[in-house]
Amino acid sequence: MMNWLNKLFPTPLTDPFAIELQGVLGFRPDNLKLYHQAFSHSSVENNRYGNNERLEFLGDSILDTVITEHLYNKLPNKDEGTLTDLRSKMVSRRTLNRLARAFKVQDFVQTNFKGRIPASVFGNAFEALIAAIYIDQGQAFCKNFIEEKIINIHFSLDDLEKEIVSYKKHFIQWSQKHSKSYRFELVEESGESHQKSFVIALYSEAKLLAKGAGSSKKKAEEEASKKACQDQSL
Amino acid sequence: MMNWLNKLFPTPLTDPFAIELQGVLGFRPDNLKLYHQAFSHSSVENNRYGNNERLEFLGDSILDTVITEHLYNKLPNKDEGTLTDLRSKMVSRRTLNRLARAFKVQDFVQTNFKGRIPASVFGNAFEALIAAIYIDQGQAFCKNFIEEKIINIHFSLDDLEKEIVSYKKHFIQWSQKHSKSYRFELVEESGESHQKSFVIALYSEAKLLAKGAGSSKKKAEEEASKKACQDQSL
Repeated sequence: MMNWLNKLFPTPLTDPFAIELQGVLGFRPDNLKLYHQAFSHSSVENNRYGNNERLEFLGDSILDTVITEHLYNKLPNKDEGTLTDLRSKMVSRRTLNRLARAFKVQDFVQTNFKGRIPASVFGNAFEALIAAIYIDQGQAFCKNFIEEKIINIHFSLDDLEKEIVSYKKHFIQWSQKHSKSYRFELVEESGESHQKSFVIALYSEAKLLAKGAGSSKKKAEEEASKKACQDQSL
Repeated sequence: MMNWLNKLFPTPLTDPFAIELQGVLGFRPDNLKLYHQAFSHSSVENNRYGNNERLEFLGDSILDTVITEHLYNKLPNKDEGTLTDLRSKMVSRRTLNRLARAFKVQDFVQTNFKGRIPASVFGNAFEALIAAIYIDQGQAFCKNFIEEKIINIHFSLDDLEKEIVSYKKHFIQWSQKHSKSYRFELVEESGESHQKSFVIALYSEAKLLAKGAGSSKKKAEEEASKKACQDQSL
């Protein structure tokens, strides 16, 4: 920990790693060893800083909780299922890899791969970086960093919600993009007029992908689309 | 929020729910609505407090992070795989249901079930209770509550570590994760058919890590794996 005098009159950074890191993070890192460790992949043997797996374990959980609390507070009218969906998107492997690129993690990571480095190496190092910030700068600082520098800049809750709001739309876009025909077919309709139930089957080309049930045709189509998107990882 | 005068000279609790809750939690809850909500299962329709699903979403993540940080700090020599195993045990459905019983959640939960209430209802309400404490008393208080009243009282890291269900499984996972080949080799078999004894050697890459003996090949493999995991702090 630096004392208050150092905080007030910091000596200029001279270490190139520290200078570059400060440029990316927007604050002055104190304990550089932590950041070196965060960028050290386990493929590097006898690394003097140790590898980043334990930090990744911690950072993953910290990021998850800050995002969870953010969603809880910002979307007071959304149910737990929607919040879970949104969070899944925000902490998906794909998103983490994207965030890693935004924070130039690839410029810092040390690995011992011969060929191409898998993108997940960067996403994992990004999680480890979160833990390094947490330990180095404290809980409140890290939470603020995640909210200001990650969530507010890199996520739009509106867009994320829209993304999910319609799986049907998502499925149709996917089909058009891949030039595949699709078809929703009503296969069952039951119940009294005020309490109807519908089952809709969704076909891609001639193949049945999923069936969905709901209290309206629209809901049943949405449910079938959701299943199809999830089963096929669309 | 109560002001400092109320904090210094609190009026005695009169609400039976608040009195009972204080007895279980060991502190005076402020915003009782939050706790009522935490104990409200979604099966109760038109509940004035709303159901506990959103709180459960939040509490699950808070508990996870406090436990993650605790393990990270308390076990500096354990790798991420072991920490993950330990955390899985500490936040398993079974553990949550057990914690729910310890905090008498069943005495507070409101449901509309006709028959027996599934144990998970209590575990989920327990997670919601964590979120209620977090919102009601703040982040630092809640973290301290989880450490003092949950982790320190209800978990023994020593016992949990011992519980690692299968060292062989753990060792294989570790090997796969680190792209290391491994091999179990029978090096000795002795005794009569009804009282056999086996010795198995475990190699990682070409290196002998440990030998284990047992009355079956399976037991000898497990023993060798256990020694290897302990020797190498896996």
